Amino acid sequence: MSPSRLDQLRLLENDDACILISHPVNIRYLCGYSGSNALLLCTPDKSYLLTDARYEIQCAQECFDVEVVIAKSGLLTSALELLTCTDLTIEAGHMSVATREAITAAKPELDVKNSLGLVERLRVVKDAVELDLISTACAISVAALEQVATYLRPGLSEREIAQHLEHTMLQLGADDKAFESIVATGTNTAIPHHQPTRRIVESGDLIKIDFGAKIDGYHADCTRMFVAGQPASWQVELHSVVRECQELARDTLRSGVLAANVDAAARDFMKSHDKAHLFTHGLGHGVGLEIHEDPFFSSQPATTIDQGTVVTIEPGAYIRNQGGVRIEDTVVVTEAGYNNLTNFTYDLITIG
Amino acid sequence: MSPSRLDQLRLLENDDACILISHPVNIRYLCGYSGSNALLLCTPDKSYLLTDARYEIQCAQECFDVEVVIAKSGLLTSALELLTCTDLTIEAGHMSVATREAITAAKPELDVKNSLGLVERLRVVKDAVELDLISTACAISVAALEQVATYLRPGLSEREIAQHLEHTMLQLGADDKAFESIVATGTNTAIPHHQPTRRIVESGDLIKIDFGAKIDGYHADCTRMFVAGQPASWQVELHSVVRECQELARDTLRSGVLAANVDAAARDFMKSHDKAHLFTHGLGHGVGLEIHEDPFFSSQPATTIDQGTVVTIEPGAYIRNQGGVRIEDTVVVTEAGYNNLTNFTYDLITIG
Repeated sequence: MSPSRLDQLRLLENDDACILISHPVNIRYLCGYSGSNALLLCTPDKSYLLTDARYEIQCAQECFDVEVVIAKSGLLTSALELLTCTDLTIEAGHMSVATREAITAAKPELDVKNSLGLVERLRVVKDAVELDLISTACAISVAALEQVATYLRPGLSEREIAQHLEHTMLQLGADDKAFESIVATGTNTAIPHHQPTRRIVESGDLIKIDFGAKIDGYHADCTRMFVAGQPASWQVELHSVVRECQELARDTLRSGVLAANVDAAARDFMKSHDKAHLFTHGLGHGVGLEIHEDPFFSSQPATTIDQGTVVTIEPGAYIRNQGGVRIEDTVVVTEAGYNNLTNFTYDLITIG
Repeated sequence: MSPSRLDQLRLLENDDACILISHPVNIRYLCGYSGSNALLLCTPDKSYLLTDARYEIQCAQECFDVEVVIAKSGLLTSALELLTCTDLTIEAGHMSVATREAITAAKPELDVKNSLGLVERLRVVKDAVELDLISTACAISVAALEQVATYLRPGLSEREIAQHLEHTMLQLGADDKAFESIVATGTNTAIPHHQPTRRIVESGDLIKIDFGAKIDGYHADCTRMFVAGQPASWQVELHSVVRECQELARDTLRSGVLAANVDAAARDFMKSHDKAHLFTHGLGHGVGLEIHEDPFFSSQPATTIDQGTVVTIEPGAYIRNQGGVRIEDTVVVTEAGYNNLTNFTYDLITIG
C-alpha cells in the first residue's frame, strides 16, 4: 500500500514541524473534505480537519486520514490550540496577511515558516483514481461537443450555445461545468477569454468553443473551432497554422521533457509563420482539482514534465477586430509520449 | 453626480497613500473588470488596472475610471513601477503572505499598511443599479422555483432536481447559478450544506432547496421546504417553528438596527421552543457581488444594518439522522423595514 497523501506531505517537511493547510483544494486533496470552510493541521503524530457545525455529517461521509474537529471558537483559534510543535509551516501562497498576523498575535513565540507550492507539488502527478476521473470528465466533454456540433447554426447566440453545451454535459453525467464556457463568434473570437454574449452567429463567422466538464472535483479542458458556411482564406490559414502548432507541441511531450522546450517548440513554429505576436498567452497548464494548476508551460527553465502529469496544450493566434483561433487538448503524459483525453477532430468544422 | 467608487475609496484613505486592490470582486466593483487576472492600483492622481494580454479587448469594453495597463513583466512588478507614493495600503484579508513578501523584496523602503474590509465597507449599501440586478436575480429564482414545484415528485434524484432548477434559471435569463444548489431529501435535509446526490425522493421525505440565480455578477439566495405526501407531525412542527422564527427575525429589520439584535431575536425564539441547539449556523449574511459578504448576523455587537443593505434571513433547525428545515429570503433593508425580494409561499408544500 502506498503512503497516504498526508504521509507524503510530512516527508517533504522536517519531522518536528506542524503544517497548516488553508487552501481548500489542497485540503480536499489531502483528506477528502469538499466543503467551503476548513483548516487542516498536520502534527507529527496526527492530523486534524477543523470545520464548522454545518459540515459535521458531510465530514463523517467524506474525510479520511484526519480527526474531524468542529471548531466552536473559530477555525484558527482551534488549530493553534491543537499545536504540539514550536515550528509551524504555512502555505504562503494562499494564507492571507491578516491570518498570518493573527497567528503571531495569538502565539508570538511560534516559529512560522513560509512554504510555496508544498501540496501543489504532490498534486502534479496523478494517481489512477484521479486519471480515471479526469478521463471521464474529458469523455463527457467530447461527447457533449459532438452533440453541440449538430446543434450549431447561424441565428443562435453565444449564450444559447454555451447553455446548450453545459446542459448537455450535465445530462451526460457531469457534476458541473469545469469553468465558465468560452463561446466566441465572429470578431469576438479575437478575445482569448471571451464571455458569451447575446451576439448571434452569422454566416462567415468563426466559432471558438473552450469548455469542459467536472467530475468529483476533477476538470476537463478542450477547445475546438467551427465556421458558419464557407471559410474565408484567412480563416483557413490561421486555423491551419494553429492546428499544426498544437500537434507539434503535443508531439514534444514525454516523461522528463522540459516545459520550456515544449513552449519553445510552439513559439518557434509560430515565429517561423510570422505569427508569434498573435500568440499572446501561455501554451498550457496542468489540470486536476483546479482548472489551472502546476505545471505551467513557459520560457522559465527548471520545470520537467513527469509521467502521469495531466496538461493542456493550447496555442492560439488572435487578430484584433477580425478573429482568432485556439485548439486545445487535455492529455496525460506517458513514458514515451502522451495519451490524448479529448479526442475530437481538429478540422475547422463547417456548420449551418 | 455622485463620486465614483474609486473616489469614495480614496476618501477612506489618507490622501498621500497608494492603494493596491487584489481581491477580484473588489476590483470588479471599483472599475468593472470581470476577468480572472488583475491588480488595481489607486494613486492620488490616477488609477491603473493591470492585467494580461488575454483581457485587452474585454477591458476596453467593460472598465471605467482606470487606465488599463497590459503588464508584460508580471502584474505586481508593473504595479510597483507605477507607484508614486512612499506608503502603500494593501488588502490584508486577501493578499497572500507570498505577495506581501515580494513587495518588500522589490521595494524595501516602501511603508506597507494593512487594511481590512476597505472596499467591502463600500459594497455594503447597494446603489440603484445593484438593487435592480439583485432584484432581477431574485425574481428569476422565484419564477424557477415555481416551475420546479410543479416538477417535483417521488422518484426524482437530488441531482435531477438541482439540474432541472439550474436549467430553468438559465432559460429564464440567469447568467449562471449563484452557487452550487443545495437540494437535500429525507435524512439529508439534516445536513445544512448538503451536496446533491443520486438519492431518490421517497414518500414521506422532506425536501430542502437552497439556491439562487446570478445576473451580471450579482446573486440571489432563497430556501424553501417541500414534503412528498402527507407530512409527519415532527415535520410539521419543525417547519412551523422555523417559519415563525424566520418571520420574526425579518420583522426586526429596519435601517439602523443592530445585527446582534436581529440575531438574538431569532436565537431567543428558538430557545423558547427548546430548539436553540438545532440552529447550528449563522442567521444570515449580506448578498451582492459575493454570495456571502458583509454584513454577517452574529452575536458580535457593533454592526448596524443600514438602508439599502441586502441580506438573507435564514434560520434552520436540524435533527441528525432524521431531517432538517431552513427557510430563507433575500431582502433589502429600508428605512421602516424591508422589501422581500424572494416572495414565495412559506408553506410546507406537499408534492407528488
